[in-house]
Amino acid sequence: MEKLFAPASLAIIGLSSKPNNIPRITLENTLRWGYRGRIFGVNPKGTEEQVDGIRMYRDIEDLPVVPDLAFCLVPARHVPEMVERCGRFGIRHMAVPSGGFSEFSAEGKQLAALTLEQARAFGVRIVGPNGLTVADTSSGLCLPFIPLCRAPKGGMSIISQSGGVSIMIFNYLVDENIGIAKFASIGNKLDLDEVDFLEYYGRDPETRVICLYVESIERGQALIEAASHIDKPIVVYKANSTPAGAKAAMSHTAALSNDEEIIDAAFERAGILRIHNYHDFFAAAKAFSLPPMRGRRVMVMSPAGGFSVITADLCEKAGFAFADPGRDFYEGLRNYGNAGVIRFSNPLDMGDIYDPQLTAHVIYSVMHSEKIDGALLVTQYPHMPPGDTVFHRMFLTDLSKETWGAILSAGKPMGVCLFGPSKLTLQTKKAVNFPIFNSPEELVRAMAMQMHFHTRTPYAPPRPPDGIDQARARAWLEGAGGDCGEEALELCETFGMRVAASRVATSPEEAVLAAGELGFPVVMKVISPAALHKTEVGGVALGVADEEGVRRTFARLRENLEVSLPQARFDGVRLQATAPAGVDMFVGGTQDASFGPVLYFGLGGIYVEIFRDVACCLCPAPREEIMQRLMGLACFPLLTGARGGVKSDLPVFVDFLVRVSHLLAAFPQIGELDLNPVRVMVNGQGVLALDARMRIAGQPGK
Amino acid sequence: MEKLFAPASLAIIGLSSKPNNIPRITLENTLRWGYRGRIFGVNPKGTEEQVDGIRMYRDIEDLPVVPDLAFCLVPARHVPEMVERCGRFGIRHMAVPSGGFSEFSAEGKQLAALTLEQARAFGVRIVGPNGLTVADTSSGLCLPFIPLCRAPKGGMSIISQSGGVSIMIFNYLVDENIGIAKFASIGNKLDLDEVDFLEYYGRDPETRVICLYVESIERGQALIEAASHIDKPIVVYKANSTPAGAKAAMSHTAALSNDEEIIDAAFERAGILRIHNYHDFFAAAKAFSLPPMRGRRVMVMSPAGGFSVITADLCEKAGFAFADPGRDFYEGLRNYGNAGVIRFSNPLDMGDIYDPQLTAHVIYSVMHSEKIDGALLVTQYPHMPPGDTVFHRMFLTDLSKETWGAILSAGKPMGVCLFGPSKLTLQTKKAVNFPIFNSPEELVRAMAMQMHFHTRTPYAPPRPPDGIDQARARAWLEGAGGDCGEEALELCETFGMRVAASRVATSPEEAVLAAGELGFPVVMKVISPAALHKTEVGGVALGVADEEGVRRTFARLRENLEVSLPQARFDGVRLQATAPAGVDMFVGGTQDASFGPVLYFGLGGIYVEIFRDVACCLCPAPREEIMQRLMGLACFPLLTGARGGVKSDLPVFVDFLVRVSHLLAAFPQIGELDLNPVRVMVNGQGVLALDARMRIAGQPGK
Repeated sequence: MEKLFAPASLAIIGLSSKPNNIPRITLENTLRWGYRGRIFGVNPKGTEEQVDGIRMYRDIEDLPVVPDLAFCLVPARHVPEMVERCGRFGIRHMAVPSGGFSEFSAEGKQLAALTLEQARAFGVRIVGPNGLTVADTSSGLCLPFIPLCRAPKGGMSIISQSGGVSIMIFNYLVDENIGIAKFASIGNKLDLDEVDFLEYYGRDPETRVICLYVESIERGQALIEAASHIDKPIVVYKANSTPAGAKAAMSHTAALSNDEEIIDAAFERAGILRIHNYHDFFAAAKAFSLPPMRGRRVMVMSPAGGFSVITADLCEKAGFAFADPGRDFYEGLRNYGNAGVIRFSNPLDMGDIYDPQLTAHVIYSVMHSEKIDGALLVTQYPHMPPGDTVFHRMFLTDLSKETWGAILSAGKPMGVCLFGPSKLTLQTKKAVNFPIFNSPEELVRAMAMQMHFHTRTPYAPPRPPDGIDQARARAWLEGAGGDCGEEALELCETFGMRVAASRVATSPEEAVLAAGELGFPVVMKVISPAALHKTEVGGVALGVADEEGVRRTFARLRENLEVSLPQARFDGVRLQATAPAGVDMFVGGTQDASFGPVLYFGLGGIYVEIFRDVACCLCPAPREEIMQRLMGLACFPLLTGARGGVKSDLPVFVDFLVRVSHLLAAFPQIGELDLNPVRVMVNGQGVLALDARMRIAGQPGK
Repeated sequence: MEKLFAPASLAIIGLSSKPNNIPRITLENTLRWGYRGRIFGVNPKGTEEQVDGIRMYRDIEDLPVVPDLAFCLVPARHVPEMVERCGRFGIRHMAVPSGGFSEFSAEGKQLAALTLEQARAFGVRIVGPNGLTVADTSSGLCLPFIPLCRAPKGGMSIISQSGGVSIMIFNYLVDENIGIAKFASIGNKLDLDEVDFLEYYGRDPETRVICLYVESIERGQALIEAASHIDKPIVVYKANSTPAGAKAAMSHTAALSNDEEIIDAAFERAGILRIHNYHDFFAAAKAFSLPPMRGRRVMVMSPAGGFSVITADLCEKAGFAFADPGRDFYEGLRNYGNAGVIRFSNPLDMGDIYDPQLTAHVIYSVMHSEKIDGALLVTQYPHMPPGDTVFHRMFLTDLSKETWGAILSAGKPMGVCLFGPSKLTLQTKKAVNFPIFNSPEELVRAMAMQMHFHTRTPYAPPRPPDGIDQARARAWLEGAGGDCGEEALELCETFGMRVAASRVATSPEEAVLAAGELGFPVVMKVISPAALHKTEVGGVALGVADEEGVRRTFARLRENLEVSLPQARFDGVRLQATAPAGVDMFVGGTQDASFGPVLYFGLGGIYVEIFRDVACCLCPAPREEIMQRLMGLACFPLLTGARGGVKSDLPVFVDFLVRVSHLLAAFPQIGELDLNPVRVMVNGQGVLALDARMRIAGQPGK
């Protein structure tokens, strides 16, 4: 990867001095950015000796040395051949911006496959196609083929699936006083993808904040794994979250939509910060340039009372807690008021403090209160008519030294939002060493991200709980395959989950015996490989109360099956004890093509689909993560008895979910699992899975 | 009101040339803004002959004429007296910015009451206290006491409950190329409030967009009434929507929180546009300076494919429809591509169109397609190194004339978002006659507002449906009062709602007779003024199947009452026919202190509180509005049978809700109404209210 960003030598294929030659822009950018490696020009059709001082060669094979990197902007149909020739010559890194591949046509898809084949054959790593490829403010390499002024150096590094989205970042660096380290526009990510670049940025000492724009995530598990090991903020804009966006993405970088809920669950686990607002890339870069906010307790300050209200509303929604610095603190501020007509509290209305030195003292006091983890200040730097008045002094006195001093000496962040004409705020942004935010919304979103990042619990892969008999589970699965019904509960038992006791009876007499063992009333269900949806064939009977009932029901279930499905095999009847009352939950699992096994859970019953009150976790899932998601469900109060019910055995249910997540993680052949209902009971009666359906890859017994 | 904004003469009370004299800033502002009326200075303690050329008077009574307006910035404790003296002298309008009233202390509250009393006594109208009061770019009056450069004239008018929030608007006018007409910072709105200013702005020919910042709404019904008659966009930021915001607001302008759901319902009815982002005041002003978007069909365009995806996602969420200009249209664009490697669709990826003249032609074609109601263009105006390349021509060619031409000739809006360094975008903003948006998010939010405003159905007060017997209802209510139970169903019947048939029996024999009439099985419930919550006293029996059961149940209900509430009067038993199956909905009503009667409805049963799947409408509510809210409920598919159920009698249920809304509107003494369940049945069986509770103001029989 080092050779991609800082190659000792670079070949530019397709270079010429003809008007509108695009590779020439790449050359100009690289010269302008201060690249110091050796550069070769290559053009098979060319007759020029040099272009902009760069010596030209007709064929890549003519170069005097094998360059570390080849930049190759030729029509898609020539790309496979160029990759082959470069590979054969010994080149191991290529940047391919050309469009016309999978994103465009079926033919382009074939060209992509051929390109990848050649790359693999020669061990060539490719960035692109259909992207602006890479740039690096340290090495001075700047391959994007759009004219770019030299970007300021800094800690922000970029990975983007869209060239346009990434290139527009350059429009804001100077305005926002942000510098960048590395840039990668990965396009169709045929070979190198966001995970590769993420891992590299994670190790890169110059990168402090990683910004990622993606429209699809194909290697979700690898992304999460990589992100979990990186102790830098990773800020992701995942677009393509609606059908309309997906349509655009299909014709853009051949992206497929991922399930938004799974993505959110995955990002949260990995500490990835998801933004939904393009400019929040800059907001995040600004927020992370401040000292860390290591707790939730914020003090909101503004000389405009209304902005105290607005910012407090925003903080409440963003998950901040309002710091209470105590009575003494507020008493101490009392002397600072002018007219004495504003009461101090949090948010702190500073509209009555006209003396700048007192403002500086308030800032110092706030930052050094042990009961405050960070502060937000919404103020203004207005364009005013000339004249020395209290308001001039109040709004136009430079307190940046005092503010920055208080931030550094407290080691806590103060996020400052400045309202003012852009000319004045720009001046300020460039003059001070702390970030200036543009709106209360941006300020609160960005500082909340920073706070959540610094207060997060890092993910540790959970160890399986006791009582799991993996060997028995494997044996059970080896004998199974295809779709199965409640016999899947037997598999659940091997992972230590409690399931409803049941007996299989092949005759009425066996059924009576079984019912006696289970205790009346019993539930009876037909067993037949053809009848997976038992209620549809009249194959379920609830509350069978006595022996006579059992006999009659046995006959009726058999009859119903014969009438509904004349060809179906009758394998007998399953009898189940009637479970005590409780809250019926839904527990399920799937295998996501990108993120692997996923556990779902929520309120069961008839409203599952109506209210979609379902949470999900990647598998295996830690107890704490499951508990946190469970608490986020609308139905959570039902489990805690807060709504007039009684307290359920919540810890037992969480344990149950942990076990399901380990089961799904251990056996990826379980394609779908549906435990519904799982009854969560009260008074220490625990949790009981009452019914199941499962889809296993492969055929039974294979 | 004219005399408040454009007074022929103005008295400034408290004026002096002492350092930091605040009224002097008001004088300076007014002089600077070009006010042309006569100005008098008043200072009871003063000895100066003149201040800044303004002749000074010791007492208001000394003025040679009675001024149209008095600006009075004196400590709160002197305000009541000043209002009295001004009123006695004949002044009818006063601007009072002083703080220290209801927002500060109990004493301040008394001062406020006293001030209002004096104002009423002399017919003085007051703006304030605790606000910056008014300014007007036409008359040149500028009373806010913070130094302000002369603001550009334009169509934006402001009403704000916070001085700080309103004053910060001035920081952006020049940047965003927006002018203002009138400004009112109403503070504690002791006398004149947002409704008064709204009505005035509605009539003001210079005002084209009304921007309102409020923290509380006390006269909700009047606000909605006023807004409904104004055919200008009214953009409202209602802050103070969380507990933290409310705390800030209490100490700020003494505001109380309103119920957010009621506010949303009310705003939607009145066509008020609610924003949740301060800068959207400017975004709205920009969007409404474009021709109206009269349909939902949008075309999204960008030379950056990723921004097509981002903007399409945003449009989908904002309620736009994606225009389909047809195959011919796209075929026509084919010739414009450069490399021919981008497929055209909506969103339109223009990344392959390098020729500015072709871009201009695409813009023209889009604007003139009959299948497109408006367009959004996300592009850039970057800072580039010098040099004539395709990208220079693509991004830096001025197409503003062609764009504005296409907008004007099509009479449709094109919203343009420009990414670029603020220096360059500012230049553009000032040079062109159409608005420039700063981000795709701002663009889509603002244009969605514009589109929703221009495609809205204006509210017309609904006429009561047939079959309402208002006289019978009034008679019933005159005999009632306090809390009552299912006898409230009788009241519902007078408004044409179908309720479960029932009979009252005072003996077992009467009960048997009644059950025979109703048909078995029946529901039986105890009647007692003391037992409003019947289940809690064992007072309800379901599915009583035969005569013997009726007799036994009658006795049991009586016994249960005696055991639970020994003192309670036993008034007999109510028998009800068992209703057919259906979807049980919840229908309720309350009286909101600000917005009047409110109708609520949603899914009934045990999950009402868990999922809060409830909508609300102000009363009386039009059929269409109710239908629209109903469609927004998560449970709506249950009513349409989309989830495997059967189709319910939806129109009958809507009619039922319309009737409830008229009942609540006609009789404000109904403080609370709870119809639960209201069963919505299938196959033309209609809707049946099964149970009720009601709270009526006053005592029974009074």
